[in-house]
Amino acid sequence: MLSSVSGPADLRRLDDESLTRLAAEVRELLIESVAANGGHLGPNLGVVELTIALHRVFDSPNDKIVWDTGHQAYVHKMLTGRADQFGDLRKEGGLSGYPSHAESHHDWVENSHASTSLSYADGLARANAVQGKDDHVVAVIGDGALTGGMAWEAINNICADNCRRVVIVVNDNGRSYTPTVGGLANRLTQIRTNPRYEPALSAIRERMTTGPKVAGVAYEALHAIKKGFKDVLAPQGMFEDLGIKYLGPVDGHDRRAMEQALTAARNFAGPVLVHAITTKGHGYDIAVANENDQMHQATPFDRATGEAISIAPAGWTSVFRDEIVRIADDRPDVVGITAAMLYPTGLDAFADKFPDRVLDVGIAEQHAVTSAAGMAMGGLHPVVAVYATFLNRAFDQVLMDVALHRQGVTFVLDRAGVTGDDGASHNGMWDLSLMQLVPGLHLAAPRDGSRLRELLREAVEIDDAPSVVRFAKGPVAPDLEAVDRVGAVDVLHRSDDAQVLVVGVGTMAAMAVDVAQRLEQEGVSATAIDPRWIKPLDPAVLDLAAEHRLVVTIEDNGRQGGVGSTILHAVSDRGLDVPVRIHAVAQEFLDHAKRDVILKRLGLTPESITQDALARLGECPEGDRR
Amino acid sequence: MLSSVSGPADLRRLDDESLTRLAAEVRELLIESVAANGGHLGPNLGVVELTIALHRVFDSPNDKIVWDTGHQAYVHKMLTGRADQFGDLRKEGGLSGYPSHAESHHDWVENSHASTSLSYADGLARANAVQGKDDHVVAVIGDGALTGGMAWEAINNICADNCRRVVIVVNDNGRSYTPTVGGLANRLTQIRTNPRYEPALSAIRERMTTGPKVAGVAYEALHAIKKGFKDVLAPQGMFEDLGIKYLGPVDGHDRRAMEQALTAARNFAGPVLVHAITTKGHGYDIAVANENDQMHQATPFDRATGEAISIAPAGWTSVFRDEIVRIADDRPDVVGITAAMLYPTGLDAFADKFPDRVLDVGIAEQHAVTSAAGMAMGGLHPVVAVYATFLNRAFDQVLMDVALHRQGVTFVLDRAGVTGDDGASHNGMWDLSLMQLVPGLHLAAPRDGSRLRELLREAVEIDDAPSVVRFAKGPVAPDLEAVDRVGAVDVLHRSDDAQVLVVGVGTMAAMAVDVAQRLEQEGVSATAIDPRWIKPLDPAVLDLAAEHRLVVTIEDNGRQGGVGSTILHAVSDRGLDVPVRIHAVAQEFLDHAKRDVILKRLGLTPESITQDALARLGECPEGDRR
Repeated sequence: MLSSVSGPADLRRLDDESLTRLAAEVRELLIESVAANGGHLGPNLGVVELTIALHRVFDSPNDKIVWDTGHQAYVHKMLTGRADQFGDLRKEGGLSGYPSHAESHHDWVENSHASTSLSYADGLARANAVQGKDDHVVAVIGDGALTGGMAWEAINNICADNCRRVVIVVNDNGRSYTPTVGGLANRLTQIRTNPRYEPALSAIRERMTTGPKVAGVAYEALHAIKKGFKDVLAPQGMFEDLGIKYLGPVDGHDRRAMEQALTAARNFAGPVLVHAITTKGHGYDIAVANENDQMHQATPFDRATGEAISIAPAGWTSVFRDEIVRIADDRPDVVGITAAMLYPTGLDAFADKFPDRVLDVGIAEQHAVTSAAGMAMGGLHPVVAVYATFLNRAFDQVLMDVALHRQGVTFVLDRAGVTGDDGASHNGMWDLSLMQLVPGLHLAAPRDGSRLRELLREAVEIDDAPSVVRFAKGPVAPDLEAVDRVGAVDVLHRSDDAQVLVVGVGTMAAMAVDVAQRLEQEGVSATAIDPRWIKPLDPAVLDLAAEHRLVVTIEDNGRQGGVGSTILHAVSDRGLDVPVRIHAVAQEFLDHAKRDVILKRLGLTPESITQDALARLGECPEGDRR
Repeated sequence: MLSSVSGPADLRRLDDESLTRLAAEVRELLIESVAANGGHLGPNLGVVELTIALHRVFDSPNDKIVWDTGHQAYVHKMLTGRADQFGDLRKEGGLSGYPSHAESHHDWVENSHASTSLSYADGLARANAVQGKDDHVVAVIGDGALTGGMAWEAINNICADNCRRVVIVVNDNGRSYTPTVGGLANRLTQIRTNPRYEPALSAIRERMTTGPKVAGVAYEALHAIKKGFKDVLAPQGMFEDLGIKYLGPVDGHDRRAMEQALTAARNFAGPVLVHAITTKGHGYDIAVANENDQMHQATPFDRATGEAISIAPAGWTSVFRDEIVRIADDRPDVVGITAAMLYPTGLDAFADKFPDRVLDVGIAEQHAVTSAAGMAMGGLHPVVAVYATFLNRAFDQVLMDVALHRQGVTFVLDRAGVTGDDGASHNGMWDLSLMQLVPGLHLAAPRDGSRLRELLREAVEIDDAPSVVRFAKGPVAPDLEAVDRVGAVDVLHRSDDAQVLVVGVGTMAAMAVDVAQRLEQEGVSATAIDPRWIKPLDPAVLDLAAEHRLVVTIEDNGRQGGVGSTILHAVSDRGLDVPVRIHAVAQEFLDHAKRDVILKRLGLTPESITQDALARLGECPEGDRR
């Protein structure tokens, strides 16, 4: 059935029975391809019927469908002509795990950072209004993403006048990775758990299937039923106070009910919210039963058992997970904060042991940072654990609310550097540049597990300024012991009368040693160091630079304003004549691929860096050395 | 009366009559000191009674009061022992225009960027809870700041459980600079304009003044009255859906009514919202009658007429204001977006002429940027006009939502560089570093009015990438014509066989010419250039660098990752041996003072830069020149 669907128009020709078979085939393909390649499973299993209904009611791409947190768009991809490409999901050159305009004109935004869809939709609808077009704009947003402030900013604007014909589909599965938190989530939970919810849904369903099929009439029926249940069931008081029409709740796995509600929404002349109740992992019992995250994002697994095929070696996250509990044992003032990512950031063990000291604020990085500033003012030492790329969303809060106020808040940035598979938006290649802009901030990049433990402990000791510890995705680097320490700087490799100083930042320290060894095989003696603390930069780095003919820096952050740039700057300010070769990530958006493939493409390999150093040395007259 | 108040405790000893006299004296001092020094007038006139009531009911600083958009804290400063310092308001070494922990332990946060108070309050309350303290936390937030997403993130969290004893005072004057926009504002307006509002307020007032004074009983009375009017008056459906107790509306200029409501709130064991209705400029007819902004922020003025004492020469904003209308005339696809700053950004003339093409999104920079991306996808060319410092709040949106999606959105950054008077948080010293991180973005810094017009036109021609035009606060720099153009670079001063290349960024171009001339008086020939476009940097800058013995860069952005840093980086990458001396703003938070005082303190003067260049030249052997 799926092979006969080359686009949304084909869906509109199918009868009920065929559509039910189609849904089953879509689920089968979802499980099969994520089991093979890894990817987002639970969220996509939850939107199969919702997506089929959307594409039957709306006319994509003339009607524009925007997916918030685009990882829920796999089904959409299958129904818009890309089902046969799922064998290459998330591989280099294959399908992206997010919507991609380059792949299809049905994809408007990649939207991998949450809570943005309503703003896009508002803008698209306004463009329609200004240009006199009457196409529809649909945003699909989870209850989790509604906790993000951007979503509220957009709702406030969408509701400001009636010119915006925006249909907001709330895909309410009660979860981000973990259960959604906050006042709104509590209200939504009241609806889902109300004993009158099931009968109400049945009544709606019955009326829909037996009543007249004309959209307007169906809408009236739906409307009348809803009114009857409104005080029991709907958070409409809130939305209608804001000026938005509320439809629901609708059973998101009942395709016909979804189609009826979406048709009513399409025909309404103003902003409408359709509240769909879904279950993450629906149709795959093993996913539904996974209590942590319903297989939100899975590595390749055995579909019969749900077990991961290969157990990944312990990652950076697990080292943090372990060490933060030890720190919490010693320091009752240390508290943990996560923005809807308790397990992925490794704060779960801390929360298990000290449930009152770990806080999940929802997908709300700005609030996470500024409430941490408040906690610090109140005498606590908060540790905010977040993926590096998401701290971009709270730069102003780190700068103005934490640093300007000299508060001791520690930020733990997981998945910093080149992460690869998830594409441009998930690479943590901005943090070393951004965080170096913040006056007074302390910034550390551990090279291995022992250094992560050590630097984390040093960071939480800083009580009058923000501190940052950043590390990579994936398996933790094997411990690499220093041969010496100069100031705060670890010397990892040393030769007499060395000509080249190789500086490795964080996980790139091992590559720095590799480069030093390769240089020596070529007859050029070299020193390799790990500065440990990047900001403030220890003056020992400059003292060492002055003793060499060439400085080589290696980092997996963007070139612009990164660590290499800072070292070059410092060398220049001190008037040293030693040239600095900066090896970093090109300042561009990187297509998805495995990390090592990307690093090779960027020239961030020991071979390439060694060659560059040899070539540059050839140009440096011996006499330049100071 | 005011001179007898050295702190909040003194307020609690005053009787009604004395308090009324005190309010009058506070207003008198507000008008007098802002008339003399400039500052925020309208917002402070609106919170006189509210602030007196706050300090009588709560026990600051044990109870912590957080002011959102801290410019409304002048009255708070007067009542906490600083009334006698208002003669030096906003002067170097004098009182800051914002709360300042260095000034007083009654000031917890500077909070000059909007919508952060509720997050601070949530954090402070949580710190109390973790440590078993039962102090109160009060946040005072305007209806304008409630449009910011951070405020919603915080409300969602404050309401998540009942452990947070936070009192939220909504100071509802219906305005930011201009009337507050959005669905919530519409709902609040319904309340204010409802014909039953006045009688309801009177009834509340009467019951409060005649009924029993015991707080609990008064609360019950208030509660009962409120329930009766709830459907007519209160947006409580929304807030109570979120799980927050709603009290109000209360007449914010009725001090006794405010005290009763705040007392009730203080005694309630959970989060409470007190909805106070106030009038911006209250008590000074000239301010109330000012329809644009109720003298929100005033330059020194004649208090009898409200007229500014000296008419400032036309500023950068007025050039933009004029040119954007001309562009809009030519280009029907160009639309304007402001985040609650229609007049301050100069979009008002555009809005007057094309009301359907200018949008005020409220204090919601994130939404402003991403909805602009949506509009661009929909075929428009949005121009987002914002103060430079506030774009920090939407860095991720510029990066991921505009640049990654290659959308043609133009950002116009007013008040970039060192602005001075408003203190650390208002200096626009981050944008050149931040914006250079964004792949594909085009970044221009006009040196004068003609260049602003020219570069703005060039920017809106770019339809496949974000573009930025940044300029300073205050009077526009006099036109400075180029003597030549090399590539995209304007040569402003040229000598035969010049030794020093001086690069001036934006408004610092005139200083570059000054430095070049001073060098020549010292017998050192020099070239002065303005790159116009900073990103991408024209290769001509490097070609010119190669022809000189020394490169000097001047910018009023932070040193870290700024334009000088980029030029140094490029010089190094090309393997040029010419030294680069970077003159920029020290990477630290700057205390408030006049711009020229700050620049001098930072060494950003022609004298200092010339001396530095001469000293550096002395160290450069002639033979180094290439």
